[in-house]
Amino acid sequence: MSCVVAVVGATGVVGREMLRTLELRRFPATEVRALASARSAGSRVPFRGGELEVKLACAEAFDGVDIALFSAGAAAARELAPLAAARGAVVIDNSSAWRGDPDCPLVVPEVNMDAAKNRPKGIIANPNCSTIQMVVALGPLHAAARLKHVVVSTYQAASGKGHAAMDELISQTRELAAGGEPVGNVFPGALAGNLLMDWKAGSLPDWSEEELKMVNETRKILGDPEIGVTPTTVRVPVVTGHSEAVHAQFHRPMTAAEARELLRRAPGVRLFDEPYAPGKHPQPREAAGTDDVFVGRVRDDLAVPGALNLWIVADNLRKGAALNAVQIAERLVG
Amino acid sequence: MSCVVAVVGATGVVGREMLRTLELRRFPATEVRALASARSAGSRVPFRGGELEVKLACAEAFDGVDIALFSAGAAAARELAPLAAARGAVVIDNSSAWRGDPDCPLVVPEVNMDAAKNRPKGIIANPNCSTIQMVVALGPLHAAARLKHVVVSTYQAASGKGHAAMDELISQTRELAAGGEPVGNVFPGALAGNLLMDWKAGSLPDWSEEELKMVNETRKILGDPEIGVTPTTVRVPVVTGHSEAVHAQFHRPMTAAEARELLRRAPGVRLFDEPYAPGKHPQPREAAGTDDVFVGRVRDDLAVPGALNLWIVADNLRKGAALNAVQIAERLVG
Repeated sequence: MSCVVAVVGATGVVGREMLRTLELRRFPATEVRALASARSAGSRVPFRGGELEVKLACAEAFDGVDIALFSAGAAAARELAPLAAARGAVVIDNSSAWRGDPDCPLVVPEVNMDAAKNRPKGIIANPNCSTIQMVVALGPLHAAARLKHVVVSTYQAASGKGHAAMDELISQTRELAAGGEPVGNVFPGALAGNLLMDWKAGSLPDWSEEELKMVNETRKILGDPEIGVTPTTVRVPVVTGHSEAVHAQFHRPMTAAEARELLRRAPGVRLFDEPYAPGKHPQPREAAGTDDVFVGRVRDDLAVPGALNLWIVADNLRKGAALNAVQIAERLVG
Repeated sequence: MSCVVAVVGATGVVGREMLRTLELRRFPATEVRALASARSAGSRVPFRGGELEVKLACAEAFDGVDIALFSAGAAAARELAPLAAARGAVVIDNSSAWRGDPDCPLVVPEVNMDAAKNRPKGIIANPNCSTIQMVVALGPLHAAARLKHVVVSTYQAASGKGHAAMDELISQTRELAAGGEPVGNVFPGALAGNLLMDWKAGSLPDWSEEELKMVNETRKILGDPEIGVTPTTVRVPVVTGHSEAVHAQFHRPMTAAEARELLRRAPGVRLFDEPYAPGKHPQPREAAGTDDVFVGRVRDDLAVPGALNLWIVADNLRKGAALNAVQIAERLVG
C-alpha cells in the first residue's frame, strides 16, 4: 500500500527533525515530499542518506499526499492545512493555528489517541512542546486520581524558538566565554548567562502566550476543562531539552509511591526512581537526542496532603514536536 | 565610638563581598580584620583602596571585636562563633550552622529585625540566599494576608556555591563554546548548557538540603510554623543572580493589585510593574551587582481565587548573603 508523506516547513528546525524522525523510525512512507515557502523552495534537505529537493508548498503540492506533517508556523498552517485536507491528506500541524479549534483534535498518542478519530476538518493539532512532555507524565496520574491544579515552572531551551535562536544562543555563549556582553537580536536580550521570558504577550494581560497555551492545551488533551493550570514559562541558556518543575494536586489523594508505580508502566516515560542525590535527576543534556520523557524527583508534597511534585525533562524538538507528530502518523497508518 | 568588625572567611566569595559591601556602604568601622583558616592566613584581600593581611581565625583574633561577620562554612561557624561571642562580639553568621537553633535569631532586616534583639548566644544567623530574596518579597504580603502555601521553583546561580563553582561554570562555558563536552568537578556534571540539582541530600528522603532550608527558614523568619513551602531548587548556567518562580496562597484572598501596592512601598524591593512583555521582567544579568530584590510578573492566579504568582530575582552574593549580613550589622550599630 502506498503512503505519501509531505513535510511542510522542511527546512526549519522541527521540519528537519521530522524528516530525521521518519527516517530513524523507518516510517513506511512510499514517498516523502519536502515542502516549504518560496524562500526555501529549491534548496535541499538530507533524507535517507540522500537529499530531497524542497518544493513550494502550494495546493497542488498536496495532490496524492496521505499525511501532511506541518511545521511551518501558524499563518502558513491556517492557509495551507485546509487545502491539503481538501485534497484528502490528514494534516498533523505543529503550529498553534488549529489547537484551539473544537473541530481539530489535539493529540498526544500516549494520552488521547482516540481523540484523533474525530477530525471533521482533516486536521490534527500537535500540542506545544512544553505541554506535551507535561501531559505524558501527568496523563496516567490524571486517569487515576483526576488532576485538580497544576503549578508548573518551565526551564525551556533555545531550540524551541527555531534555528536562528539556537544560533544566537551559541554565538552569545561564545561572546560570554570571551568575556564580552552578549546582545540579543532574535531574543529580547542576553540569554547566555541569563534567563529570559521571550514569548509574545498572551490574550490575558500579565500572561505570555506560551503560558496560556499550557493552560488551554493541558485541559483539552486531558479532556477536563476544570483543571487549574498555573504556569510560569522561562527560557534558560540550554540549546535543546525543556525541563519543568511541577506541583500537582488531585481530586483524590495521590502518593509518590502510587505515582511511581503508574509512571513506571506509563508509555513514553523513563522514570528516575532513586531518592534525591546531587546530579542524579533528569537533565536536558541527557534527554536531548532521545525520545523519552524523563520523569524524576517524584515526591509527596511537604505541605499539601495527597499532592505531588515532579521534575519532567524531554527533548523539545523530538517528543515536544517532531516525534509526537510522527507518532500520531504511525498510529494513523498502523 | 569605636567599632571593630571582623570578617571571617575573608578570602571566600561571600567574605570578599562582605568587605566590598562594608566599604561601599561606608560602614562606620574603626577597624576591619580579615580572618580565615590556616590555609588562607597570610594572604591579602583588597579593602578601601589598600589591602588587609588575612589573619588566622582563632579565639584570640576576636579580642576587641564588636561585630564578627562569618562566612566560613558551617563547621568553622560551629567552632568559632561561640568563641567570638564569648569575647563580646555579636556574630552574624552566613552559614547554616545556627539557623535552626531556637536561641539564634534568623534575620532579614526588612522583615524581622526585631528578632535580632533576643540573641542569648550572641549569634544572629543570616538566612540562605534563596530564602532571603523570597521573604523580602513575601514578607509584606504575609503581614497583610498571612501566607498559607508557597510553591517555589528556583533558578540558582553558580556563585552560590563559591569561587571554584563560578570558575568551573566559566571554564565549562568556554569548553561548550569551543564545541567540547563540559565536565564537572565541583559540580556533579555539566552545568554549562544544562541544569543541575547539585545540593546535598536533605534529612528527608527525596528532598535536597537546599529545599529543606527554604521550608524551615521561611517559617522561622516569617514567624509562622504553619506556612506550607514546596520548593524545587535548580542550578542554572548563570554566574550570579538567583531567580524564583513563586505561587503563593494566603489565608485571606490577595489580589495582584493589592500585592503591587504593598510591594511598591516594601523596603528593599524594586517592583517591575508593567504588564507582561517579552524581555521586560527581572533578569539575573541586570540584578547582579545591585542591592535590590527585583519583583515582577505579579499576577492573579488563573486557577486559585485569591492566590498570586511572582517572579523574584536578586544578587545572591549581595542581598542573598553579604549585604543582608552587613545590613543587620548597620541596624545593630545604628
